[in-house]
Amino acid sequence: MKRRSPLQGVKPQVVKVPAYTLHAYEADIKLNQNENPFDFPEDLKEEVFRRFRRRQWSRYPDFVPDSLRQQLAAFAGWQKDGVLVGNGSNELLQASLMVLIHSRTRIAIPSPTFTVYRLISTVLGAKIIYIPLNPDMSYNVDELVSKSRESGAGVLIINTPNNPTGCVLRDGDLEKILKEFSGFVLLDEAYYEFWGHTALHFLKEYPRLIITRTFSKAMGMASLRFGYLLADPAIAEQIAKAKLPYNVNQFSLTAAEVALENLSRFRPAIEEVLRERERLGREMSEIPGLKVYPTAANFFLVEVPAVPRAIFDDLYRQGILVRDVSSYPMLSKCLRISVGTRTENDRLLSALRASLARSASGIERAGESK
Amino acid sequence: MKRRSPLQGVKPQVVKVPAYTLHAYEADIKLNQNENPFDFPEDLKEEVFRRFRRRQWSRYPDFVPDSLRQQLAAFAGWQKDGVLVGNGSNELLQASLMVLIHSRTRIAIPSPTFTVYRLISTVLGAKIIYIPLNPDMSYNVDELVSKSRESGAGVLIINTPNNPTGCVLRDGDLEKILKEFSGFVLLDEAYYEFWGHTALHFLKEYPRLIITRTFSKAMGMASLRFGYLLADPAIAEQIAKAKLPYNVNQFSLTAAEVALENLSRFRPAIEEVLRERERLGREMSEIPGLKVYPTAANFFLVEVPAVPRAIFDDLYRQGILVRDVSSYPMLSKCLRISVGTRTENDRLLSALRASLARSASGIERAGESK
Repeated sequence: MKRRSPLQGVKPQVVKVPAYTLHAYEADIKLNQNENPFDFPEDLKEEVFRRFRRRQWSRYPDFVPDSLRQQLAAFAGWQKDGVLVGNGSNELLQASLMVLIHSRTRIAIPSPTFTVYRLISTVLGAKIIYIPLNPDMSYNVDELVSKSRESGAGVLIINTPNNPTGCVLRDGDLEKILKEFSGFVLLDEAYYEFWGHTALHFLKEYPRLIITRTFSKAMGMASLRFGYLLADPAIAEQIAKAKLPYNVNQFSLTAAEVALENLSRFRPAIEEVLRERERLGREMSEIPGLKVYPTAANFFLVEVPAVPRAIFDDLYRQGILVRDVSSYPMLSKCLRISVGTRTENDRLLSALRASLARSASGIERAGESK
Repeated sequence: MKRRSPLQGVKPQVVKVPAYTLHAYEADIKLNQNENPFDFPEDLKEEVFRRFRRRQWSRYPDFVPDSLRQQLAAFAGWQKDGVLVGNGSNELLQASLMVLIHSRTRIAIPSPTFTVYRLISTVLGAKIIYIPLNPDMSYNVDELVSKSRESGAGVLIINTPNNPTGCVLRDGDLEKILKEFSGFVLLDEAYYEFWGHTALHFLKEYPRLIITRTFSKAMGMASLRFGYLLADPAIAEQIAKAKLPYNVNQFSLTAAEVALENLSRFRPAIEEVLRERERLGREMSEIPGLKVYPTAANFFLVEVPAVPRAIFDDLYRQGILVRDVSSYPMLSKCLRISVGTRTENDRLLSALRASLARSASGIERAGESK
């Protein structure tokens, strides 16, 4: 008797979709995950430990972390009933899609953007409509509207600032989309603190807008996985049904609470990242052959004058880890580089210069040998 | 112009399904969530803090926590590639269903059982076939097989020991199901340490078996949300696609690692819960009017000779929180009571006796007034 494949019964679109993977590289200088180079302040860590010590670990977290939702509501300037907390903002994005995606729902996603949108949508059985950015890596707003409309998309997902390009969707453009497209707009504001701008003020008028944010970037809590969602309370109530009970562990809830009570302590790191972004962008632009795209986030999309993988490898040999995004649509010549500390950026700049010089002479040699 | 409902576009089955809610009660003695009454050992907590202090909070957790998967594999006696870790076992159950449930897939679920199975399945668009337990609250194995087969179910979810009844699925019965039902069998072993038995040995022969477990119960880590899944590596690879990147925060990963290095430290609490289970079961059975169902978990299903809510309220006034499960199918006369410490169980027993005595005289008075 022939043994049937163990995959029989698994959704075909799942079997087909490649997994989201990341090779585990170790490096002195990590500029590959858009993390905050400045850590959560040490004294606040101790405060988190102190509060967490008082709790029994064997007891579940609060069922609905109401006081934390209230803190987030006050911080964001929104209603508590329209705030949900999640195990990273990705979980809230996934929960939103779970309640919005029927089988064969069409989902409009700009391209290139954060890979996880495609992965979640595919697993959930949606048909994806990709809407390319402009050649200058800005959002093509007319296409976002027309393709979302024409395809009959139920949901449009926009990351602003956008990973991995750094481009943003301005208020007027978002309003045009909200006016002309009748589906839900999922706006991922993971990097909004580095842009200094939010679309929150549209929530009241447009209940089809859903905003997700994270404490993983500007708030220095990537290891703790904490995100939140802002939406019309009626929509939030539905999304909450797809969010598992006790989805955020008590340690992360405690850390988020301490962070929200000490917001001003996180400003200096953000300000320093912004100063360094300005400097790093300027200095990289002066390196011959590098094309640096404008960014509103804490990273740069950079076009390199060689095979990106070769530059990636060469930087890695110099102890610096960046992100090779050359497999993304439109980005075959590109790397993504996070803004680090001043010292890290200095080391990146010299490594980049050395690397490009080597690569240029390599190209010359390749030319000579023809 | 009439403003359309903000819920337009949300899946109708989501709007219809009631949310999983839990009223936040405070009480001296918490016997309502099947938690471990003995906390994670204090010196191990300090070890977790010590290790976590060495990490930068602003950095993401390891992409695939390989050494932890290896530890779990060694602990469970399974292959590393067939182990996934999750933000509680519920997340892994959800991920499994996301890759197995097409729209209109039928899912067979015993009834009564853990509510979250129904919630997740409904949100994902499955049609649910409920298979009632026997009147004595044991699994009806013939019906599990025949109804799963007849309905063409793609997945059968079984909790063993079962929450909230305490019943188990024995090896012979599980094997019968695996032989006669061709869909996937999701086996939730959240309470297996209290039963002292696992179905792991079936995994090799039956790759359609998927087992989930948790550190929330016997391991005393409910506040930290950590679960794991054991499956055929080919199946695990697919389920991993529905699991979000960095789904377990670094603090919980660290705690799980410390727990796995110190397994023997968790035995005394489990042994004490088992001793107290035996005693509590015996003493409750001697209380006139109480019917105590057999259990292989760390809780009891108890039928009370009055409206369960009245007994619940009366216990609550005495500082003891139990779970009112009277809204579950077949359980209109029942409460669920977790096994606590010796002192907690003593207080529960006297409170129960007092409460039932009051309720009996109340019933007499009600009888007299006729």
